[in-house]
Formats: sequence, C-alpha cells, structure tokens
Amino acid sequence: MAEKLQESEVAARLKELSGWNLEKGELEREFTFKNFAEAMKFVNAVAERAEAANHHPDIDIRWNKVRLRLSTHSKGGLTDLDFALAAEIDSL
Amino acid sequence: MAEKLQESEVAARLKELSGWNLEKGELEREFTFKNFAEAMKFVNAVAERAEAANHHPDIDIRWNKVRLRLSTHSKGGLTDLDFALAAEIDSL
Repeated sequence: MAEKLQESEVAARLKELSGWNLEKGELEREFTFKNFAEAMKFVNAVAERAEAANHHPDIDIRWNKVRLRLSTHSKGGLTDLDFALAAEIDSL
Repeated sequence: MAEKLQESEVAARLKELSGWNLEKGELEREFTFKNFAEAMKFVNAVAERAEAANHHPDIDIRWNKVRLRLSTHSKGGLTDLDFALAAEIDSL
C-alpha cells in the first residue's frame, strides 16, 4: 500500500510535475479548454484513469475549466497514488 | 430571452422543485450515487442536457456525490433557464 509521503518527498515529487500546485495538502491543477464539450471529454478521460487506479480526484467543472484535486484521504496526505495519477492525467 | 426573476417569483418556482436549495442566489442540489461510475453517468446525462440548453451548471464531483449549481450569470441572477434545467435534471 502507498504510504503518506513526508514533506521533503512531496516537494521533490512536485518538481517532477508541471502545472500542479500544493494547496491545503492536496495536489491541485486547473485545466482550461475551448468549451464545455472539450472539458467534458477531459473529465471522462480522467474518470476512466481514476476508476482504473481506484483513486478518484475531486473534480470541479466550470464550463471550460476543470479543477482537479488529489489526495489520499485514508492516509491523511499525499502518497504515490496521487503523484502517479497526476502524471497519468498530464499525459492525456 | 429569459429575464432575471424577482425574489417572489424565485420563491414560488423553488416550491415546484424538490431537493433544490437557494444558496447565495443560485439553485443548488447535491445528488448521491452508489459509486463514482454511477455519479459519472449522471454527470454525462446532465452535460448532454446542458449542451442542448446551452446553459451549464457548475458541477462538483466528490466520488459518489455530485453537487450542481445553477444561475444565469449574464442576467445576474436566476431565470427561467435555471428552473427549466433543474426540472429537466430531476426528470433524469
């Protein structure tokens, strides 16, 4: 099982990602699209990966903007699961 | 074009809906599902109606919970568009 990462590990892993921020202990990134339909395509692609990983981000849809937040609630912080899913989302 | 509804009209129309609340001048309702996959099915059904109406709710997904918020930003309040879409969503 993925264990909670220490602050120094989080900082190091965060540098490997682009566009993600640490906000209130969660990984957060906002994506902007041409319109709502494109935003929904992205949300469905994220949802498919989330189900495959059995790890689900919070998803906020505001027409052409999608904000994702990742954390591992059961571990009370960020784990490998969060960074792995963030990297996978960035590869979409 | 749909015009901004007066407070008394909003109160009357709200009574025709079930489960929707008025929150900060917006129509708000939270829906709970069995799991994330069922929540996503609902989100996609809502998205289809939203595109057809060219009127898009804010959508917040928290695993099995979906929170919708409706308002007509261009009119600075609630209009027929919001109540029509809320009723359509309730019929899903």
